[in-house]
Amino acid sequence: MTATRYEGNKKISVVEGCKKAPKANEVTVEIAYSGICGTDLHIFHGVMDERVGKPHIMGHECSGVIEAVGSDVSGLSIGDKVVVRPLDPCGACYACQHGMSHICYNLNFMGVDTDGSMQSYWTVPASTIHKIPQDMDLKNAALVEPVAVAVHDVNRSGLKAGDKAVVIGGGPIGILVALVAKSFGADVVISEINPFRLGFAKDLGIDTVNPTEKDLVTYVNTWTDGVGADVCFEVSGSKPGAMVMTEVVKTRGKVVLVGIYGQPAEVNLKQMWLREVELIGARVYEDIDYDLAIDLVAKNDYSFDKLITKVAPLEELQDILDGMDTDQQGMKVLVKC
Amino acid sequence: MTATRYEGNKKISVVEGCKKAPKANEVTVEIAYSGICGTDLHIFHGVMDERVGKPHIMGHECSGVIEAVGSDVSGLSIGDKVVVRPLDPCGACYACQHGMSHICYNLNFMGVDTDGSMQSYWTVPASTIHKIPQDMDLKNAALVEPVAVAVHDVNRSGLKAGDKAVVIGGGPIGILVALVAKSFGADVVISEINPFRLGFAKDLGIDTVNPTEKDLVTYVNTWTDGVGADVCFEVSGSKPGAMVMTEVVKTRGKVVLVGIYGQPAEVNLKQMWLREVELIGARVYEDIDYDLAIDLVAKNDYSFDKLITKVAPLEELQDILDGMDTDQQGMKVLVKC
Repeated sequence: MTATRYEGNKKISVVEGCKKAPKANEVTVEIAYSGICGTDLHIFHGVMDERVGKPHIMGHECSGVIEAVGSDVSGLSIGDKVVVRPLDPCGACYACQHGMSHICYNLNFMGVDTDGSMQSYWTVPASTIHKIPQDMDLKNAALVEPVAVAVHDVNRSGLKAGDKAVVIGGGPIGILVALVAKSFGADVVISEINPFRLGFAKDLGIDTVNPTEKDLVTYVNTWTDGVGADVCFEVSGSKPGAMVMTEVVKTRGKVVLVGIYGQPAEVNLKQMWLREVELIGARVYEDIDYDLAIDLVAKNDYSFDKLITKVAPLEELQDILDGMDTDQQGMKVLVKC
Repeated sequence: MTATRYEGNKKISVVEGCKKAPKANEVTVEIAYSGICGTDLHIFHGVMDERVGKPHIMGHECSGVIEAVGSDVSGLSIGDKVVVRPLDPCGACYACQHGMSHICYNLNFMGVDTDGSMQSYWTVPASTIHKIPQDMDLKNAALVEPVAVAVHDVNRSGLKAGDKAVVIGGGPIGILVALVAKSFGADVVISEINPFRLGFAKDLGIDTVNPTEKDLVTYVNTWTDGVGADVCFEVSGSKPGAMVMTEVVKTRGKVVLVGIYGQPAEVNLKQMWLREVELIGARVYEDIDYDLAIDLVAKNDYSFDKLITKVAPLEELQDILDGMDTDQQGMKVLVKC
């Protein structure tokens, strides 16, 4: 039983921990792979110290096999291949009582608010488990969590086959949103300024535009005969992204807010008023998003597996995270637990 | 046939004009009353000179009686009491072809982009005419246009009976939005800083809060047991309004953007993401909004008529507009045409 712990100040320790036995409504998952998310990097950099306890086991994008099952759990067995939907809602608040437990007012986001998956065994509520096909590759399965984010974003947008969609930001989530939108039958363009990411998206067959070379609004107006896109996904979390997101969509077009803004940002509200644009917040995922994400990743018709640019042992987490600070040439890094 | 014309630089002239005969698909309305809107004040102040030709006849909130009918017009007769829905869409653009002609990409907003109702006879497309009950007071009928704005805003929000709604801004449109929301069965509070407007709203039986005295978010959280309001209407067009609008609503609450922002404004996008808030642009009105507005104003169960704080002859338009620059004690001023 090995666990990695964030100790503060960009330090990761590797410890031999005690495996927690599952309580009645819990299961223990032998973690196969755990993906590194931007949130994990934020924790590593210390910007979430106020929220995250120390020492802290990071990780919330994982795949594994059930190793132990609590006494009250039904429908899950030792040996099942699974992924974890790392949301532990309170069950009592307005959101939980109205079918929105994924945005519970008191949400425990597992791996952030409590310990996560960067350890060899993770004991979690059985309600967070989704079984996956028994022939599914466990590396690919570690992508289900970020793909579910993308599925949720696309579901929130109401995107339909034949729609035109602009994705602002070509990092891992932006690319996954573009691929999921394509799986819905949309025409998609990613706006991105980083040359590596532009090339990565192109290699996956996604159209791209670099807004430092071509004005994005002009590009979209030409593409859509002056109408505007049906949907825009703002994934960059950047000030220029917030400013342009309302300017690329048609009358009553939808803008889905995916990127996280630490500070308020300026928005072209007059454009929203002129075209009756709708700006829609989208956070994490719901059960049904996970189900579709599992299906999409298992079929892999859209080459989700190509997002995995590196796999390394759990014990090397310190080196991996140090390296990610300087190397911007990767997409999704998995640690083998 | 008397007409008032904006000549630029806060100058209004009164002229004896030629009454235009209606074309085949037009009618001529003998204007009874024309309300003064914030937009008219903007024109008077010269800030819309680039859009508005000179000389220009202002006015788009009016009531009247049909005086002449074009040869191809059916269903309308001389003597009918009517109001004008002052939107003249192109009919060909994406919005017009998809049931959104009120936000036509090439909209002629009559009274702004072309001459308006501040004249004794106004010749307009028959498609812009709504008949009103023959026993309806023509002064009150001049309120139908701004009430239709409020109806559109409330319809865009999806407000239901029993919902809690916050209206930011207690000018004429804010008060009308509050009254229409009450007519839908909602509990409503107006946030406003102007003492006259606060008193005016209270006299109409609307709850109020002055955010310079009580923190609005704290007020709403107390009012809603920490859940947040179902709907917020941002009517103020102010920077503080844009900042607070996303902070007073519940998970998946709706914020309707009514106020017009000349410049981009900062928005708390993180709060939108956290609670999956929806920000919805709402502009002018559709046919069905006019139908409900006529019904509401005709019944007058919510004392819409009290909004009319002054009625004066058309010939005094210069004095009225000059006076509105210094006197902030009025709500809706009508000119008798």
